Amino acid sequence: MADARTTLESGRTSVGGRPSRLLARLLRPFQNATFARRGVDDVVDLCHQLLSVRGEASGARLATEALSAYAALDAPGLDDFFNRLVREFSPDPSRIDRTAAAYRTDPTQLNLVRLQHAVEAPRQELFRRLNMATGGTAALVAMRAHLLKTLAGHPERAGLAADLTHLFRSWFNRGFLELRRIDWHTSALILERLIDHEAVHEIKGWADLRRRLAADRRCYAFFHPALPDEPLIFIEIALTRGMAARIQPLLDPRAPVADPTRADCAIFYSITSCLDGLRSISFGDFLIKQVADDLIREFRRLKTLATLSPIPTFTRWLKSGADPAVQAQLSADIVALVERCERGEAVNLAEASREVRDTVCALGAYYLLQAKKAEEPPDPVERFHLANGARLERLNWMGDTSSVGLKRGLGLMVNYAYRLGEVERNHEGYAMHRVIAASPQLHKLASLATRSPKHGLSAG
Amino acid sequence: MADARTTLESGRTSVGGRPSRLLARLLRPFQNATFARRGVDDVVDLCHQLLSVRGEASGARLATEALSAYAALDAPGLDDFFNRLVREFSPDPSRIDRTAAAYRTDPTQLNLVRLQHAVEAPRQELFRRLNMATGGTAALVAMRAHLLKTLAGHPERAGLAADLTHLFRSWFNRGFLELRRIDWHTSALILERLIDHEAVHEIKGWADLRRRLAADRRCYAFFHPALPDEPLIFIEIALTRGMAARIQPLLDPRAPVADPTRADCAIFYSITSCLDGLRSISFGDFLIKQVADDLIREFRRLKTLATLSPIPTFTRWLKSGADPAVQAQLSADIVALVERCERGEAVNLAEASREVRDTVCALGAYYLLQAKKAEEPPDPVERFHLANGARLERLNWMGDTSSVGLKRGLGLMVNYAYRLGEVERNHEGYAMHRVIAASPQLHKLASLATRSPKHGLSAG
Amino acid sequence: MADARTTLESGRTSVGGRPSRLLARLLRPFQNATFARRGVDDVVDLCHQLLSVRGEASGARLATEALSAYAALDAPGLDDFFNRLVREFSPDPSRIDRTAAAYRTDPTQLNLVRLQHAVEAPRQELFRRLNMATGGTAALVAMRAHLLKTLAGHPERAGLAADLTHLFRSWFNRGFLELRRIDWHTSALILERLIDHEAVHEIKGWADLRRRLAADRRCYAFFHPALPDEPLIFIEIALTRGMAARIQPLLDPRAPVADPTRADCAIFYSITSCLDGLRSISFGDFLIKQVADDLIREFRRLKTLATLSPIPTFTRWLKSGADPAVQAQLSADIVALVERCERGEAVNLAEASREVRDTVCALGAYYLLQAKKAEEPPDPVERFHLANGARLERLNWMGDTSSVGLKRGLGLMVNYAYRLGEVERNHEGYAMHRVIAASPQLHKLASLATRSPKHGLSAG
Amino acid sequence: MADARTTLESGRTSVGGRPSRLLARLLRPFQNATFARRGVDDVVDLCHQLLSVRGEASGARLATEALSAYAALDAPGLDDFFNRLVREFSPDPSRIDRTAAAYRTDPTQLNLVRLQHAVEAPRQELFRRLNMATGGTAALVAMRAHLLKTLAGHPERAGLAADLTHLFRSWFNRGFLELRRIDWHTSALILERLIDHEAVHEIKGWADLRRRLAADRRCYAFFHPALPDEPLIFIEIALTRGMAARIQPLLDPRAPVADPTRADCAIFYSITSCLDGLRSISFGDFLIKQVADDLIREFRRLKTLATLSPIPTFTRWLKSGADPAVQAQLSADIVALVERCERGEAVNLAEASREVRDTVCALGAYYLLQAKKAEEPPDPVERFHLANGARLERLNWMGDTSSVGLKRGLGLMVNYAYRLGEVERNHEGYAMHRVIAASPQLHKLASLATRSPKHGLSAG
Repeated sequence: MADARTTLESGRTSVGGRPSRLLARLLRPFQNATFARRGVDDVVDLCHQLLSVRGEASGARLATEALSAYAALDAPGLDDFFNRLVREFSPDPSRIDRTAAAYRTDPTQLNLVRLQHAVEAPRQELFRRLNMATGGTAALVAMRAHLLKTLAGHPERAGLAADLTHLFRSWFNRGFLELRRIDWHTSALILERLIDHEAVHEIKGWADLRRRLAADRRCYAFFHPALPDEPLIFIEIALTRGMAARIQPLLDPRAPVADPTRADCAIFYSITSCLDGLRSISFGDFLIKQVADDLIREFRRLKTLATLSPIPTFTRWLKSGADPAVQAQLSADIVALVERCERGEAVNLAEASREVRDTVCALGAYYLLQAKKAEEPPDPVERFHLANGARLERLNWMGDTSSVGLKRGLGLMVNYAYRLGEVERNHEGYAMHRVIAASPQLHKLASLATRSPKHGLSAG
Repeated sequence: MADARTTLESGRTSVGGRPSRLLARLLRPFQNATFARRGVDDVVDLCHQLLSVRGEASGARLATEALSAYAALDAPGLDDFFNRLVREFSPDPSRIDRTAAAYRTDPTQLNLVRLQHAVEAPRQELFRRLNMATGGTAALVAMRAHLLKTLAGHPERAGLAADLTHLFRSWFNRGFLELRRIDWHTSALILERLIDHEAVHEIKGWADLRRRLAADRRCYAFFHPALPDEPLIFIEIALTRGMAARIQPLLDPRAPVADPTRADCAIFYSITSCLDGLRSISFGDFLIKQVADDLIREFRRLKTLATLSPIPTFTRWLKSGADPAVQAQLSADIVALVERCERGEAVNLAEASREVRDTVCALGAYYLLQAKKAEEPPDPVERFHLANGARLERLNWMGDTSSVGLKRGLGLMVNYAYRLGEVERNHEGYAMHRVIAASPQLHKLASLATRSPKHGLSAG
Repeated sequence: MADARTTLESGRTSVGGRPSRLLARLLRPFQNATFARRGVDDVVDLCHQLLSVRGEASGARLATEALSAYAALDAPGLDDFFNRLVREFSPDPSRIDRTAAAYRTDPTQLNLVRLQHAVEAPRQELFRRLNMATGGTAALVAMRAHLLKTLAGHPERAGLAADLTHLFRSWFNRGFLELRRIDWHTSALILERLIDHEAVHEIKGWADLRRRLAADRRCYAFFHPALPDEPLIFIEIALTRGMAARIQPLLDPRAPVADPTRADCAIFYSITSCLDGLRSISFGDFLIKQVADDLIREFRRLKTLATLSPIPTFTRWLKSGADPAVQAQLSADIVALVERCERGEAVNLAEASREVRDTVCALGAYYLLQAKKAEEPPDPVERFHLANGARLERLNWMGDTSSVGLKRGLGLMVNYAYRLGEVERNHEGYAMHRVIAASPQLHKLASLATRSPKHGLSAG
Repeated sequence: MADARTTLESGRTSVGGRPSRLLARLLRPFQNATFARRGVDDVVDLCHQLLSVRGEASGARLATEALSAYAALDAPGLDDFFNRLVREFSPDPSRIDRTAAAYRTDPTQLNLVRLQHAVEAPRQELFRRLNMATGGTAALVAMRAHLLKTLAGHPERAGLAADLTHLFRSWFNRGFLELRRIDWHTSALILERLIDHEAVHEIKGWADLRRRLAADRRCYAFFHPALPDEPLIFIEIALTRGMAARIQPLLDPRAPVADPTRADCAIFYSITSCLDGLRSISFGDFLIKQVADDLIREFRRLKTLATLSPIPTFTRWLKSGADPAVQAQLSADIVALVERCERGEAVNLAEASREVRDTVCALGAYYLLQAKKAEEPPDPVERFHLANGARLERLNWMGDTSSVGLKRGLGLMVNYAYRLGEVERNHEGYAMHRVIAASPQLHKLASLATRSPKHGLSAG
């Protein structure tokens, strides 16, 4: 299972043209408007009007007009628009200085309130007023998606980005989100979003989707009342007997449908954020926890809730040679295996020697438990689940034999277990002391990685 | 029609125990909890936990627990709790000074963002996390209602109040509100709210309410998705032939039901804000405008949309002697009338002399058009409608012959007309230059008020 | 609890004007139509057209027109209309004779089908086509209500009545009914129906209703998809600790609300059929059984499901002197008590002597267990519950101290218990052999009734 | 557009395995039951129980059990079951004779009612009781579908079939059907039904379906409350400028989406009955009329409502040589064309000579207007639309160039126009006198068909 960030950082880049199509959809209500074909000057002028006295009387109309003009901007127009949001809708430095001085002299709550008003950018109020247009929330989500793409080259837009982030943190507060189950009774409109967005384990059309929504599967998504047809994030689950070690059987559209009431395990095999414009407004942890609660209530036999997740950065790390102790373990066979996987050649892991298998597993465990980047594990999927309070439970050889699985992680997959009784403790240990919760087997496996090769290795 | 503010400022104070019952209802989900019986120390401690690392893992649980403990506080406990929100959850002054200095030296967007973070009180994030509890939004609305009542005696709570106001402006943005029609198909739960809250023209039980929801009446309310059973504000409308001049016939529960398709006029005769905790988060203007749009679309014969509103401050002003030019007009008959109305005696206006009638009307018009308090009209209902872009259309003698109507406004009622084509212009004129839009008749009537009495007066 | 039939036979006659108002409501969609003011000839002509070739092309329009003309008929017009439905829309006797003869000669399935067609009255098809009008089902229900009222004086309308009954048995099949819970979230429209229709224990306004829908009460109703705002039948339930013996505490609107999760008993204290036009299309037994299933699933502590029901015919029987063995038991005190109850005088049963109490209870038990009318118990409420498979569980002295309760049953109330494990057996025993299921206590009590008075009596 | 009957008679036979899969679905609720694996004796025994006294107490349970046992029957079991429904659940001939004799002697309404009861087969009541099971209606629809397939070889089942037909005519009365618009907001479950059932112009997967539900298309279906996820019949419509003459452009999934508000024509290009078990319970005419009403209300510019329909029997008629006058027109070119079309060879009609084109069109018109089978036109699609009151408007050369279109109708397509003002008159003319409503152009075209070939022909 890839976390939201992985999906956004790595996964989605491979999806090519999709995001643009999505952004277009979010702006659609503003695209047929008769007054759309205008330039950036018109957009900015309408924004100023919206913030003026006139905006109080005719907010919804002006907001609609402004967003329609915005939706018609081309790439240079957009760039220009963001520049002017920075130049013309930032707070007044002299007023900030004045109120800051007053507060320094006399730090009353009243002076604090004045300073707070002074530092708030006028565009905050602009965004709140744009939101009055029907479809305004979707348009602002699209605007943030556009903006985030340009941020690397435009550090001066940090304040602008911070304003939208601040607003979205308020608007998309967990308390306002609605959890809905997704199944074959769901509208085609929403199901199509799942097909479009799933980037971890691609959904290959409607027949594939149908299997993923059958009786022994579950799918849930968060929705926001202002975006009733847009899943914000969704999670896919398989109800199984025993903790699943391999992803391919779970994804097989022809697999027979099992009786879910006999399942003792819920495998979270994919979680996907749908809207780039909500990046870093996190929902994933809430989603996992609420779904876990619901499943436990529905299926009384469930004993284990765990993910089946990739290690998308494993191969890259192996090749990087960052850890000399590890290099010693890389036999010629393993180096050859890594290279064939990386090149996308067909590799049959079932034919690998026991030694190769054991070494790769030990290295995987070592990577997950010992490798560090700024004191944290380098793998983003791992960081996501550890931060949520999960525990590294099991490493699975041949867990994902797809070409992507081989390329990124030599086919290894991890079960991260969510145990209600220890989630809080694990989370605190990781958040405060970077303690990695892991099963004894994984610790043992990792310890084998740096032993002398002759001692041999064996995976659980 | 009284505006939201009137209802809150004057009307609601007369309603006695109701608000407390309402607040209790908003906190109900937190009142049966087993962990409720604890003191203010527990509440504050749970709030600190909610903001800590643990809060990230167990937000919803901690938020529920904190709000349950909050709901159990008695009056002194509440007072203490607000004090500690000021003391322990305000921003750090030294960090503010530091980041303000950095921004002064180098006013980049990045330094701006740092300063913005520094001035934001930690309780903002606290409130956002409390909102994760099921029912959290309602509880926070109740919290603000409690807080606002104490504000007059506690100026140091201004920052705390500003934080909740800031948050609610975001959360209750017009774009998130849902307009629903209220009729006899609506749930008893919601209809009961209307009976509870209507303070302008009291609803005397279910039979009375039923008449107000009949075919020639309309009622609409705004709802927020997180408070699905709580109307935030509602408006009551009568569909009539001709612009209604008197309120009593509209309120008569035995009045025959007219055919609404033949109406040429929609009279907005009451608008009521329901939640004290949302005071000054204004919806009234949006509600009037959207309802006006909807009515025009549904009833193609409608020519006039107007209110039938009281002048709740008229009698008080007359007695205040603030305007010497006016005092000259007050004949002994009028003085006697005012006094009898004020004392709540039965007064039959139909028996008043023509001179009394004409003079009272002229004074009413003069009051609405000429009287000023800080450059604005002193009457809050008038200010509300002028700010919305309405125009003073007609003054109605014997418009409200109830004892309250006599006492506050000598029975005068005003029609404020909403004309789609001029709302924006009226609003701008008033907002920027305090221009009062009024019909020629009202101007003429006002001009008679300060003439020498012998010239005689005549009302339209 | 009175059963559906009681309500219809006895209860409703006391409700005066209500049924007429109800019938008017069912016909309302047809009352504003411009073509309504016409006579019975027009109605019959439109009915003929509807059955003709034209009816196939323009069924919905003609049906609407016919029902509008029908809705405008006055009492003599209605009478005339029913006569003509008998005269002009009955089957053709000669065709019946012909097809019957053919079937007698050659009883093939084909000849059977021909005979079946021949005996079906053309008005059956007429009713099916009238049902195509929007609101047609409600209008036909009203038509049957009108018809049933006239049946006693018009035996020749038996065939007409049978046709509507046959049709409604198909249309209102249990498989098409929807069970809905009624609570304070239900629309005022539907709740008002409950207030209108409840005839067993009158609902005295909205505050009374609200208590009956509180957390320790339940109310369910059956609805038909074509009559979405009309409860067909509803049942009222109290969740109690211990099997309730008295009705007054259950009906007290000021009684404190108990915690329903601690209830061990569900008392079905009222069941009411709403539509006269559906008389003898029985739903009551289905409603009780499905609600029992649902309650058991929701409240795991429930041990007892029982009614609290009147004996509406008890006093009448006592006075009738039908059973000489009983007359011997009637002491002067009891005779006096019966007379005072019958006259509606205030009677304080708490002051009755122990002997009176014991004798009345014994007579009550004897009446329920031994009295017979055509081999069945004479009490309709008892017959209803026995036929459903309930068992006579307990007799309650002072069970209903209202004046109606005293008048009809000397204040006695009965608990009929529904035990899932024995409902089927009880039903069969009663249906096939008239076996009355009763608790040992009731048997013992009944046995005391005909003993010599000096032996003394004691109620359980 | 093919009518319901065509779809069922000819269209569906080509769809192979589908119906079985469908029937399985309708029986699904009864297939997992633990008591399913039993023989026909058990089914029949349960049916007898259901009709007995026990059935009154435990109807829903017994019905569920009986249908579960039914659902488990194999083909011989089914056959046996139908035989026993005929043998054991038919009415009693002697009782019929007796009551028929009584009625003959004394034809009162009471004797009529007795005779009606005597002729009603007990299985009618059996079916009504089976319907009490959850999912019972669907199971009975499946039962009738099974039964109808066997009817040709079992004339003795005519009475059994008549009973189900009689019941379904009551249950599926137009007044109980709900018209729903189908679009991309509809559940995948229902959309999948459309893909499964559309037999006229096959839907080739979800992308194809999506185009058929785009803004310039409309799709509506009738639903019954007891079968909420089963469209009974659906119609597909294209909103066009000008009356469409060719089907291929309408079906092209890549065709650009037009603005529907500019359409002046609504083309009904497919109507499909979904449930074999409802054959001859007609809805098609109601569906067309109600949809026509709705479209006219929504799109004010619509001038024409017409179908684009095939002539599925044209080629067969041409080859049959039934009409000697026609044979004279068949040039060698035409005979060759017919043969190539029939063999499914690729034929490019655009290359046909003018003479071939004109002759084929004239023959088509002649076939539609002059050919007769038992006094009616032989083409079932034509009969369906004429019976609904449509008029033959235009014949379109190259209207359907698919291989099926060529094979059955040499590519000809017909527009049948529905004009609100003349539907009733057309229907009556056709129903009573077999008058075929047709445009002057079609009359002229038909008249050319039997002229001497040298006079030449020209199509409109």
